[in-house]
Amino acid sequence: MLRARFSVPLDQAALELSESTEEDLALLLADLWGSRAHARMLGETGLIPLRSAQRIDRELARLEVAAARQVVRLDPVLEDVHMNVETLLGKRIGKDAARLHTGRSRNDQVATDLVVWLREALLDLEGAALDVADALIASARAPHGQGSVPGWTHLQPAQRVRWAQILGTHALRFVRDANRLCRIRETLQECPLGSGALAGSSLPLDRERTAHLLGFQRPSLSSMDSVADRDAMVETLGALALLAVHESGLAEELVLGSMPEIQRVRLADAFVTSSSLMPHKRNPDLAELLRGEAGPAIGRLTAHLALLKGLPLAYNRDLQIGKPLLFDGVDRALRSLRVLAPMVATAEFHVPPPLATADASTESVEIVDGLVLQGVPFREAHSRVGSLVARLARDGRSLRDLSPSRWRKEFPELPHSFRLPTAQEAPDRRTTAGGSGRESIVALLREIDRRSRELRRGARTERRRLIACHELLERPIRRNLRRRR
Amino acid sequence: MLRARFSVPLDQAALELSESTEEDLALLLADLWGSRAHARMLGETGLIPLRSAQRIDRELARLEVAAARQVVRLDPVLEDVHMNVETLLGKRIGKDAARLHTGRSRNDQVATDLVVWLREALLDLEGAALDVADALIASARAPHGQGSVPGWTHLQPAQRVRWAQILGTHALRFVRDANRLCRIRETLQECPLGSGALAGSSLPLDRERTAHLLGFQRPSLSSMDSVADRDAMVETLGALALLAVHESGLAEELVLGSMPEIQRVRLADAFVTSSSLMPHKRNPDLAELLRGEAGPAIGRLTAHLALLKGLPLAYNRDLQIGKPLLFDGVDRALRSLRVLAPMVATAEFHVPPPLATADASTESVEIVDGLVLQGVPFREAHSRVGSLVARLARDGRSLRDLSPSRWRKEFPELPHSFRLPTAQEAPDRRTTAGGSGRESIVALLREIDRRSRELRRGARTERRRLIACHELLERPIRRNLRRRR
Amino acid sequence: MLRARFSVPLDQAALELSESTEEDLALLLADLWGSRAHARMLGETGLIPLRSAQRIDRELARLEVAAARQVVRLDPVLEDVHMNVETLLGKRIGKDAARLHTGRSRNDQVATDLVVWLREALLDLEGAALDVADALIASARAPHGQGSVPGWTHLQPAQRVRWAQILGTHALRFVRDANRLCRIRETLQECPLGSGALAGSSLPLDRERTAHLLGFQRPSLSSMDSVADRDAMVETLGALALLAVHESGLAEELVLGSMPEIQRVRLADAFVTSSSLMPHKRNPDLAELLRGEAGPAIGRLTAHLALLKGLPLAYNRDLQIGKPLLFDGVDRALRSLRVLAPMVATAEFHVPPPLATADASTESVEIVDGLVLQGVPFREAHSRVGSLVARLARDGRSLRDLSPSRWRKEFPELPHSFRLPTAQEAPDRRTTAGGSGRESIVALLREIDRRSRELRRGARTERRRLIACHELLERPIRRNLRRRR
Amino acid sequence: MLRARFSVPLDQAALELSESTEEDLALLLADLWGSRAHARMLGETGLIPLRSAQRIDRELARLEVAAARQVVRLDPVLEDVHMNVETLLGKRIGKDAARLHTGRSRNDQVATDLVVWLREALLDLEGAALDVADALIASARAPHGQGSVPGWTHLQPAQRVRWAQILGTHALRFVRDANRLCRIRETLQECPLGSGALAGSSLPLDRERTAHLLGFQRPSLSSMDSVADRDAMVETLGALALLAVHESGLAEELVLGSMPEIQRVRLADAFVTSSSLMPHKRNPDLAELLRGEAGPAIGRLTAHLALLKGLPLAYNRDLQIGKPLLFDGVDRALRSLRVLAPMVATAEFHVPPPLATADASTESVEIVDGLVLQGVPFREAHSRVGSLVARLARDGRSLRDLSPSRWRKEFPELPHSFRLPTAQEAPDRRTTAGGSGRESIVALLREIDRRSRELRRGARTERRRLIACHELLERPIRRNLRRRR
Repeated sequence: MLRARFSVPLDQAALELSESTEEDLALLLADLWGSRAHARMLGETGLIPLRSAQRIDRELARLEVAAARQVVRLDPVLEDVHMNVETLLGKRIGKDAARLHTGRSRNDQVATDLVVWLREALLDLEGAALDVADALIASARAPHGQGSVPGWTHLQPAQRVRWAQILGTHALRFVRDANRLCRIRETLQECPLGSGALAGSSLPLDRERTAHLLGFQRPSLSSMDSVADRDAMVETLGALALLAVHESGLAEELVLGSMPEIQRVRLADAFVTSSSLMPHKRNPDLAELLRGEAGPAIGRLTAHLALLKGLPLAYNRDLQIGKPLLFDGVDRALRSLRVLAPMVATAEFHVPPPLATADASTESVEIVDGLVLQGVPFREAHSRVGSLVARLARDGRSLRDLSPSRWRKEFPELPHSFRLPTAQEAPDRRTTAGGSGRESIVALLREIDRRSRELRRGARTERRRLIACHELLERPIRRNLRRRR
Repeated sequence: MLRARFSVPLDQAALELSESTEEDLALLLADLWGSRAHARMLGETGLIPLRSAQRIDRELARLEVAAARQVVRLDPVLEDVHMNVETLLGKRIGKDAARLHTGRSRNDQVATDLVVWLREALLDLEGAALDVADALIASARAPHGQGSVPGWTHLQPAQRVRWAQILGTHALRFVRDANRLCRIRETLQECPLGSGALAGSSLPLDRERTAHLLGFQRPSLSSMDSVADRDAMVETLGALALLAVHESGLAEELVLGSMPEIQRVRLADAFVTSSSLMPHKRNPDLAELLRGEAGPAIGRLTAHLALLKGLPLAYNRDLQIGKPLLFDGVDRALRSLRVLAPMVATAEFHVPPPLATADASTESVEIVDGLVLQGVPFREAHSRVGSLVARLARDGRSLRDLSPSRWRKEFPELPHSFRLPTAQEAPDRRTTAGGSGRESIVALLREIDRRSRELRRGARTERRRLIACHELLERPIRRNLRRRR
Repeated sequence: MLRARFSVPLDQAALELSESTEEDLALLLADLWGSRAHARMLGETGLIPLRSAQRIDRELARLEVAAARQVVRLDPVLEDVHMNVETLLGKRIGKDAARLHTGRSRNDQVATDLVVWLREALLDLEGAALDVADALIASARAPHGQGSVPGWTHLQPAQRVRWAQILGTHALRFVRDANRLCRIRETLQECPLGSGALAGSSLPLDRERTAHLLGFQRPSLSSMDSVADRDAMVETLGALALLAVHESGLAEELVLGSMPEIQRVRLADAFVTSSSLMPHKRNPDLAELLRGEAGPAIGRLTAHLALLKGLPLAYNRDLQIGKPLLFDGVDRALRSLRVLAPMVATAEFHVPPPLATADASTESVEIVDGLVLQGVPFREAHSRVGSLVARLARDGRSLRDLSPSRWRKEFPELPHSFRLPTAQEAPDRRTTAGGSGRESIVALLREIDRRSRELRRGARTERRRLIACHELLERPIRRNLRRRR
Repeated sequence: MLRARFSVPLDQAALELSESTEEDLALLLADLWGSRAHARMLGETGLIPLRSAQRIDRELARLEVAAARQVVRLDPVLEDVHMNVETLLGKRIGKDAARLHTGRSRNDQVATDLVVWLREALLDLEGAALDVADALIASARAPHGQGSVPGWTHLQPAQRVRWAQILGTHALRFVRDANRLCRIRETLQECPLGSGALAGSSLPLDRERTAHLLGFQRPSLSSMDSVADRDAMVETLGALALLAVHESGLAEELVLGSMPEIQRVRLADAFVTSSSLMPHKRNPDLAELLRGEAGPAIGRLTAHLALLKGLPLAYNRDLQIGKPLLFDGVDRALRSLRVLAPMVATAEFHVPPPLATADASTESVEIVDGLVLQGVPFREAHSRVGSLVARLARDGRSLRDLSPSRWRKEFPELPHSFRLPTAQEAPDRRTTAGGSGRESIVALLREIDRRSRELRRGARTERRRLIACHELLERPIRRNLRRRR
């Protein structure tokens, strides 16, 4: 219907490559909101007859209900959600539908749909990321959070830490992720609608009005930017890639911890699978999938950036390819987080049996620090303890195997009161702020919790605000020529 | 049905994250071929009763017909295509279905499906890439191929070349792409089936037999490799990324050439669109989409490589995430090529009006070379012509604007016979092999054509061979205990 | 010197792979600041003798001077900047140097160095991005900014816009980039120093003190997070990738605009090159390089994300590989911006000669809007103008070629006063906020300017604050046991 | 010296961004070979005086010696290796140097340099990859290769396999990598030299001759392709990314195997490090770095593909950015392989102590297969064994803990002769081709060995051939006008 300029239809293979109805379904509700706001403004300003505006709005409201019930199907021949909506409208109300696109282009329309959609997607993602953080905090505060395990650096036993710190540290990452998503959402304050194809409009549109009806602070600053800008999409894919990397790190620890060799984690039965061949298997498939999801999350970010490389202003059709990247990215992230939260919540975190090798002498730093407190220069203390460990290792022994007399011989500087902490005591020896000691961990969990609750509060307020904006559409449409600019 | 080990079902969100039925539909025919070959071998070797094998085979053959007619639906609750097929089978033939998975694991099964599927996908891709090459060659040989246009380096007019060389050069790339895909296909000679979960089987399976029935040269060398290896998938995504980059380069030239400022290309109406707002528009949307497709093609390759990073042997569930990357990659590549071929075939390639600026003095090298032939050192000749162009530029003139007397004054060394070639003559001045001259171009097109036909011949032969292998399944199954190993 | 645990040195090839002295040179000043703060705190708290602290500080201050003069060389055999500094120190002050590493690990040391370094790098980047924005604004406000050119969508003439809007829109992107970098910098408020290897320390370190001396608000919350977190590095690479993509878009427009076919842009001679073979060439090489830099910028982001995928807590050596990615990324971004700013400032922006084809009928929307204002439904108006353009196109004509009588015949609804705007008038017809009209553009440039100045002000304040923190190190070190915690 | 066209020098920041002397040093020897071949051809064909050709050649030969001794420095002001060589030449032999660039452009020159360089780099890489494969084969054949360990799928004990199969499977990957690199090398048969800037030359160059002198089979087919084609570079980066992923998988197994919890691998002291804080540490840093190198390897591939996206024919300056990607990629790959080979060769591969949990019941499939051989349908057998494992798990027991009477009760179908294999026997139970049995492994190692030796033989032959081609340059240059075409 846009091809009055041509005498032949689009090539069939070309239509199949270019139509976007499958992915566009995600945009349907956003598109309807945008069209209702636009029609209302057109009616109020007298750019279309009031009656037309009212009819259009009534029908679009009906479509919104159908869309919310997921019973609307888009026809690929009509290429995209926008032409589908206009065509459905035309079937119901006839010629009035031909007035809806007044002063609008698909370029500003799709930009508006995307930002309206993204705003809600970010709210969902923030919540899902915080659910994971909360599940981690809850586990950290549960009794098993007090267990002392060898903390790993280089995947080697380093020093004893509590599960609570490990889980809290992961929680901190997810709170950072939620905060990052929130910061992106806060940039979405400018409404592209009314930017036209690239240059605005010579019709006296009221952009302030549509911006307000759609829950934005103001119209966008440059019409050329509005139709070309995909920064927020890239930023979202970036935040999701980092989030997926955080998930992959936690998932890796769950996979490793589930190894019978390591025995630090026991995932609940509802989150493990068996093998089609080996009936004894207890596979952490879900954790593996969460680890792997980082691959496509990185790929989608790469894809979108490469897509944008070298594009001149303003709109270019290449941009369409970014849509499914964003929709898939959000969808996979939500699915992943919604598995990770209950998987963490139901997992058991164990204290594994002690290891008897010198490489696992997690007490070595305690001795070094003990010597330092007696005035031995750090490097000398480090070197002497290192040599001792090496000698013990040759006999397959560790620091814990030393007799008191051997102690005295090796390190005469140490006071008589010096003794190695037990596994359970060891984390509390580190009393520095942010360290493995009990107080630091309580403070850590309290702070994460505070941040999480603050983010949730902000998200809740925003959701209410958006609902209130949408409810403005329920008011009757009235001619208001002052709105005309 | 594999969860005898557990007392609870898989978590619902976990099922939604982990099930792969949507993408697996692509594997259905490959899976059925693999299962028929496996069942036949089990029957022949007596590992399952002959009757069971025959019943299984009959039912799978029926499913093949249904699958070819695209009427099979996969149930997400059954997680993947493999359990769907086994369950459908069970509904039809009861307990015999429980024997099909004898001596097999999903790990070797999915590896086999993938390689069977990929082999055919590569054949399709080779053909589609060659179709583009052939369309380019045809255009190069058509009358408009003889047109002389300023060849660009740095998007600046450099030297005159014929359209035939530009189009032939693009064709050369697509032939290289087809060749690259063919080389990958040729590595797919080893059948993973019979590798079990990772270690082979203690049952006397006849791997040679299933390999033969599935059209492979031999069973794979290491069962651990068979279930973990995704090299061919990555290589395919790599070849498709490079192919997409080649498409993007050609697409960019079509987009640029279509600019009214440049006027070198006129795409057919069936491959352009208009605007929802601006009725005069004639947008090369399809070429833009083809340019943009390079983004996700690169992203999928990145995604798969990142996915594999750091995975230990043997099978890990992360690998599942590679499947949709491959399927999407092949699907988008085929769709793109199938638009590009007719778009090229129907495009007109024009000789644009001459440009009058000094920057467009594409004859400058002719003068330099003329001086060199008279013994002037190259750098000196280059420098003198450069200075002249600079002086002309200040007056807004180009080399063509010089009078004969000015010639003689500037370059007294040039023989009287020297004259600048016309635009149409210029490409033929370059007589070196591979250059812009007529003979070189004829040779170029002939050679591309030869390579294209050779690749097509190979692909045809391979298709016939595969069909013949599949037809072996139509023979009756007979016990053949010698097959037992 | 850390290998007391082993009897053999590191393998030579292994040393070559693992040493990082080349890239670490970037960290030298940050490392010295961190070590001075640490030594001061150790002296103040009595963890090392006051005299030792003073000697260490004096020598490190000398090294700072040498480092600022770029005369320090790092020895690859000592593997990294940290061991180099400690070794240099030992050569000058002997055994006291062995006390510097008390209560510290390379893990928290490198994390601290990175964040200290990154904070300043971000300030530099913000400034360089704003320099480009300012150059664009200046050009937009210059006389050539008033020129009216066909705005492109799909690289086809769409509607007339002013250069000022094009340049302002690009400026808006770079201001957004600077803002994004600033937001990352604002997250760098927590000091990792004192986190030890992963668990903090059992020595009574004063982390508040070192945080303060290094210009941070507070010590980090979790020692495990401190040594493992690379979020800010990834975010920076993400912001730089998007920045590079913005540069590539502007560069593409400069490359295209420089084509003799298009003639919209004239780059200054200082930013173009010629050819080694073709003396007439005027190549926009620098713009091409700026376009191409997006490739590695995307690659570095991909690389860092893939690097982090699947890493468990806490420190893993893989993290080292992120350092050169960050340093190269910042270096290439600064170099690029420092070319782009003067290239834009010295470029001329032209009004190209008018195009006579129907595809360039940038006035078509004016007629559609004129009809809409007379009550014609938008789709009908769009379709009628489209058909007319198609008919004109067949004769090689455009809308501007129509006689007044033809006007009346085609569109009797249009009032007698209706006339097509001239090229120079056309942008001003669009009066909507953010559109191509003069007022909107003035507002746009004013707003960008305001944002740019605000960001610069914030950066200046921050630089002063950091200098003041560093100057605290010039005060004498005094024992202050209350600092001991 | 190429700027006769302009009156001002290149901007200083622009020079710093665009000069490539640091990376170009890698190309110096290739550039000299190319220039010597070109000068010889120019002399033979009479395009430059014989004396000039001889002088040029003599001086370039001297430079080759200096370059091989790595004493040549490139001046950044001269931008690239090509202008540096020409300038050095000019300083030594004066005006004759001005004749060297006759009939040549930097575009074909750099393309030639790259392919000459890449050919040798690929030979080096093939050898280094085969060194790793050979180290793996040697370890597999050593006594520790016979050890039986739980093979992992999903990082859970699946079935017992021998170290020899694990190591052999990794070896197979590296042989595939070497083969992939070799296939790329075999495509480098066409010499770009003589393609000029994009269109060939109007001078009667003898491209066959330079191709022959440079060790190529023939001149390239299309001059436009020759200067624009970077396929082989992308393919190399692709092969190196996959190789790095293979390294990362092996490295991950070495890291995991070195955990005291797992105890499967003991890396030699020369390949582990300790901690700056914790003297007991024995960190597999080198393996971690090898795991991490996959990140930048993927990033470089992504970068190069994104770089090429959307570039029109023929040469664009963006291409320059691909050079350091390739050089770094090859350099890091060689360094990595050269660490991996001795690290594998000196590592010990252990049989870890048995695990007593049900999840480690690696014998479960033996029972299932035993039942299948008695006619029990596979799924039923699988389900019954699964239930038994579940019941045992509840008591913390595994299949090995069952008494004979319990056996009989659970699985009355099993023959009296049935017994579970010991850990050492288990792998040999799987007798299928390619499986874990002794014969299959012998065959596997033999086949890998054969392929490795064959690849080495081919590489050796090629190296000799290239040396012989270079030696042609030692013959005196003689006028040979028949060469003129």
